[in-house]
Amino acid sequence: MWVEPFPDFHPSNPLFLCILANTETAKIPGISAAGKSPELTDYTPAADAELVETGNPISINEPAMTPSGAPSPAVLTRASMLLTGMPCFFINAGLRVRPKIPTIDLDSKPGGNIRTGYAVSDVMATYHKSVELGKKLSKFTDLVIIGESVPGGTTTAMGVMQALGYDGKVSSSFSDNPLGLKERVILEGMKKAGIIFGSLTRQPMRAIECLGDPMMAAAAGLVDGLNTKVVLAGGTQMVSVLSIIKSLGLKRDVSIATTKYVAFDTTANFENMTRLLGYQAFVADPGFRNSKFKGLHMYENGDVKEGVGAGGAMFAAAMCGFSQKKFLEKAEEVCYNIFKN
Amino acid sequence: MWVEPFPDFHPSNPLFLCILANTETAKIPGISAAGKSPELTDYTPAADAELVETGNPISINEPAMTPSGAPSPAVLTRASMLLTGMPCFFINAGLRVRPKIPTIDLDSKPGGNIRTGYAVSDVMATYHKSVELGKKLSKFTDLVIIGESVPGGTTTAMGVMQALGYDGKVSSSFSDNPLGLKERVILEGMKKAGIIFGSLTRQPMRAIECLGDPMMAAAAGLVDGLNTKVVLAGGTQMVSVLSIIKSLGLKRDVSIATTKYVAFDTTANFENMTRLLGYQAFVADPGFRNSKFKGLHMYENGDVKEGVGAGGAMFAAAMCGFSQKKFLEKAEEVCYNIFKN
Repeated sequence: MWVEPFPDFHPSNPLFLCILANTETAKIPGISAAGKSPELTDYTPAADAELVETGNPISINEPAMTPSGAPSPAVLTRASMLLTGMPCFFINAGLRVRPKIPTIDLDSKPGGNIRTGYAVSDVMATYHKSVELGKKLSKFTDLVIIGESVPGGTTTAMGVMQALGYDGKVSSSFSDNPLGLKERVILEGMKKAGIIFGSLTRQPMRAIECLGDPMMAAAAGLVDGLNTKVVLAGGTQMVSVLSIIKSLGLKRDVSIATTKYVAFDTTANFENMTRLLGYQAFVADPGFRNSKFKGLHMYENGDVKEGVGAGGAMFAAAMCGFSQKKFLEKAEEVCYNIFKN
Repeated sequence: MWVEPFPDFHPSNPLFLCILANTETAKIPGISAAGKSPELTDYTPAADAELVETGNPISINEPAMTPSGAPSPAVLTRASMLLTGMPCFFINAGLRVRPKIPTIDLDSKPGGNIRTGYAVSDVMATYHKSVELGKKLSKFTDLVIIGESVPGGTTTAMGVMQALGYDGKVSSSFSDNPLGLKERVILEGMKKAGIIFGSLTRQPMRAIECLGDPMMAAAAGLVDGLNTKVVLAGGTQMVSVLSIIKSLGLKRDVSIATTKYVAFDTTANFENMTRLLGYQAFVADPGFRNSKFKGLHMYENGDVKEGVGAGGAMFAAAMCGFSQKKFLEKAEEVCYNIFKN
């Protein structure tokens, strides 16, 4: 099976959501590969959403790839949406650049720089708006897959997990994970906020406010409001959302799906964390070792790894009965259409 | 029956949409009563959406009423949503003020002043984004009711109908309809745009560009994309959308629902126009002559009349089996909760 364990779910109306946010944390040099340069990370979530929806980014002229040349994981999410016909809605949880496609707007502000110890304003407002949105969406669907596109998001994920008392090691969109830099940034933020490792175990909303990003408040609120099966689609960023949900004491039918590139990343500890937190984890292998596209091959060497709900999108494709081969073919077709010029 | 003809529809998953937009046309003194002052009309759609969703406006401090003291028609829409449990999504088709609740954002710009002859930019982009949104929503619902909140919208409606060759007389949120002023504004816009009555019969998108508002492009695009039964919820503004749909040659299952205050407004010609265009019309009587609230009584004298999909919301309540009495009680309860302080 290319997704393990096999997603033996049979929803009648599955829905894919992808939460978008910008933060100033992403602009710390060396933190994020999700954009050609730190300043351009402001455009990445919009471009990802446009790529999934239309097959091409609209808000940027650069090709949708990391500085190393690997294509955006939005390619994989688009491949799955095309195969499965699953509807996908993007949620603006705090963007500097709005995508040129319809999105669900939470009217939330972008995140700050966690170095300041004050990362997210109006956390509770974003949470409550997301609860209401989740309740409404529950009327239409019985399975919701929730991905994210938040450059710099593994650093905020690590910060929040540490504040909650978890030694969550996070992954990276760089093949060479800058964990030392992330540690230093988080320590600086903790000092400014007057908190230490584990001091916010019972205050997850405060942890988001000090060290997190707006996506976390939106994702946790959606999980709270949704009266359906939920699959969080992402790597260590979604693990941090699991840690928040757990700390909130929410009892919901939640699992997590990611790519093998995150799950087997030895600098991170995805599987340990999901086991410790007690949530089922699905791991997908897109079979890129067999791809004729150099850019997809780069994923096998640790570039990109995950994002825009790519792992959950593969989960969706497998759930709908598509093979690894079919998925790979579709991902290559999407790449071909983007990079042919 | 309080809604005539009785809405003998039996949808399994009905959905209520309400399209929001601002225009500079609304700020022409004397054009719109949808706001305490012309400048404050920028806040009206956001406040309407917040009222329907939460029971109170958030973006304004003033009570949700016209200068004369009649409550916003959002009260009636909220009453119906509470009774029926129908989910309602607001669509930002070009707002200056974003509501503080989740909305679907088309990333479109607010409308200009039709006096200039250039009222809406990127009409086709808004149309196409709405088509895609409609296609997606079709996966979740089998009946969509589409309302609007666009201050100044009867003037743009009249302008577009005249450009398309229809002598569409529009209604007004004032009890005393300023039709002369509307005529003068439209003539000025036509002159600037180099068009005359009927000269754009086959160019509805151009008619919107010159004399319309962004809501029209969004509503027509939704109707195009939706593969469901559609009820346009509004008075003469939605009649203008019907004239656009007709001009586009779209064959869809569309009807229109409004209040008796618009349908029986002798300064307008709602029933003639819907008959001429060939669409079924539903007319709702909320029974406000029996209300103990002075503000609701004012509707009987021609204040407000319609808006925020109020007529379609009554259609929905009747369709779901609620009586006029139940609806009136719920509308009074909503009023009481807003105006008790």
